[in-house]
Amino acid sequence: MTRTIIESATRTTIMGFDQPFTVIGERINPTGRKILNAELEAGDFSRVEADALAQVAAGATVLDINSGAVFSNKMAEDVRYADNNFVEPELMRQLVETVQAVTDCPLCIDSSVPGALEAGLEAAKGRPLLNSVTGEEERLEMVLPLVKKYNVPVVAISNDDTGISEDPEVRFAVAKKIVERAADFGIPAHDIVVDPLVMPVGAMGTAGLQVFELNHRLRNELGVNTTCGASNISFGLPNRHGINNAFLPMAMATGMTSAIMNPVAIPIGPKKLAEKRAEIEAKGIVIPADMDDETICQIFNLGSTKPRAGKEMEAIRAANFLTNNDEGGAEWIRLNKPAGDAGGAAGGRRGGRRRRSA
Amino acid sequence: MTRTIIESATRTTIMGFDQPFTVIGERINPTGRKILNAELEAGDFSRVEADALAQVAAGATVLDINSGAVFSNKMAEDVRYADNNFVEPELMRQLVETVQAVTDCPLCIDSSVPGALEAGLEAAKGRPLLNSVTGEEERLEMVLPLVKKYNVPVVAISNDDTGISEDPEVRFAVAKKIVERAADFGIPAHDIVVDPLVMPVGAMGTAGLQVFELNHRLRNELGVNTTCGASNISFGLPNRHGINNAFLPMAMATGMTSAIMNPVAIPIGPKKLAEKRAEIEAKGIVIPADMDDETICQIFNLGSTKPRAGKEMEAIRAANFLTNNDEGGAEWIRLNKPAGDAGGAAGGRRGGRRRRSA
Repeated sequence: MTRTIIESATRTTIMGFDQPFTVIGERINPTGRKILNAELEAGDFSRVEADALAQVAAGATVLDINSGAVFSNKMAEDVRYADNNFVEPELMRQLVETVQAVTDCPLCIDSSVPGALEAGLEAAKGRPLLNSVTGEEERLEMVLPLVKKYNVPVVAISNDDTGISEDPEVRFAVAKKIVERAADFGIPAHDIVVDPLVMPVGAMGTAGLQVFELNHRLRNELGVNTTCGASNISFGLPNRHGINNAFLPMAMATGMTSAIMNPVAIPIGPKKLAEKRAEIEAKGIVIPADMDDETICQIFNLGSTKPRAGKEMEAIRAANFLTNNDEGGAEWIRLNKPAGDAGGAAGGRRGGRRRRSA
Repeated sequence: MTRTIIESATRTTIMGFDQPFTVIGERINPTGRKILNAELEAGDFSRVEADALAQVAAGATVLDINSGAVFSNKMAEDVRYADNNFVEPELMRQLVETVQAVTDCPLCIDSSVPGALEAGLEAAKGRPLLNSVTGEEERLEMVLPLVKKYNVPVVAISNDDTGISEDPEVRFAVAKKIVERAADFGIPAHDIVVDPLVMPVGAMGTAGLQVFELNHRLRNELGVNTTCGASNISFGLPNRHGINNAFLPMAMATGMTSAIMNPVAIPIGPKKLAEKRAEIEAKGIVIPADMDDETICQIFNLGSTKPRAGKEMEAIRAANFLTNNDEGGAEWIRLNKPAGDAGGAAGGRRGGRRRRSA
């Protein structure tokens, strides 16, 4: 049975077909997060700490640490900051140390910069996941020696020098090539976590089917664990959570063993809450002046002012149970037991079919 | 490609791997529904009409009609009513005629009584689905001639004279036997819809995996469509909807083509609504006296006073899209487009992985 071992100094996350799904928290990533990027440039790591803790609380069992920041202000003063080979190694070290100081969750070292990967591997305790190698020749020659030297598992993305193919056969062939090249370096298949690449289903109707079929082949033919950027599937569509909530269990049923994703529901901010409150009050509802924001959120179903697990985590936990990776449903029952209920049984009627055919 | 054709006088539902999931509405069934049973005994079919319409509105594309009522009052006056062979044929005829008068949705004729099956087949226009045959010798000899005579598709439940096996190999063998026996009668495999039997995952941890594996084999080895009593999977567990919402997409990803289920979210009744209102008001919230119940339900997230599609339908529609059975996502976009939004795009950021590796 394929098992990928990812470890911090004191905690182990096992990725495998007989294990709960590995949720790799994606939030510690300045790409596309202007505020975080600006804070990192100013040396403020408080949001990194908060994001680490919130993701672990929501159910992440690995934290991705991406150092891809762009320090425009520093760049204006010192041209060296225009080079990510200069910026990222030091930033990666700081990010890893910051996160390790607040949680013992195992890490995933994520950068396109070789020096940042090595800095992360140096700074991380235990056995982090490396993110990532691709089928590109230059990348293979650069990353696989690091994987071997540090004896860590690695994410293998199924694109190569020709780019990302829309043909799943080509993506499978790229994954196979990476596994074979890794073997040449003495790296076993169980340390390769293949990302078969999830296309947006809104742009390509077969995107879901491709992933489900690839999961099956990657598991049965290559014996590797798998991961994906799960939210990509719903890019550009309305009600993205509705798509994601179905996609994740479907991916799991067909053999996917992890995803890089945001396990945290975005909290409602003060401005949005004030808007919602005004809308409600415009309908004639009176809210007591001294009612706290969190109570208002609960009563009016406005989410929460604090980070909490998103609906995708409920879907993943149900799917863990349904793939027999939640023994006796202990985790499901613990998280879903109604307040004040001692037992686990929901009561209610027995499903119609069994009763009828009895 | 396996296609099962189910028809009313004017409408066709096609079950198949390249078709949207077939939702067979289960609500028209007096078993375990005391109020409905009493109304049917009194000759009141208004709830049957309402249930038919609500299920179709929620997304059912076939309506199951089960005549398994128990008429205790009539029984006390006339001993013939103790025999379902007496009660059900006439009741089935009335149920089918009632439903056909309000909707053109194709039907599924569901009874353990031979006479009721035949009465339903006589009364139903078009090509109804028959529910069901099993691997039991007596049932095979009774039902298959009806299937042949009326040229209809049939649900085949994977139990036999030894009962329901917990071993999926045995259940597969029973399904295979039914398909072979049907062939002896000249009934093609595409008119057999196998129910591999869904066990409660709370009682058997492998229940989900068994179904996923059986779906695969039934599709690839027997080339048949499949159905199940979907809600059985979550029997006895808290937050049953959470389990069902993951199970249905997982079943679909592994080849399941239909389910017998309730597509309708249970509306909140006046008593429950009054209770909820009192709870809210006890917290100091003031609700205008003239606010209508439906608005209150919306503001406070109390569901609806009217029947509407349950969350399982959202999961199924997402999974239809993800199995490439919602061309261009037209149905998904139609149902999820925010009010007042002309376009389909949700905007927002592109999934992290693709952007990063770009």
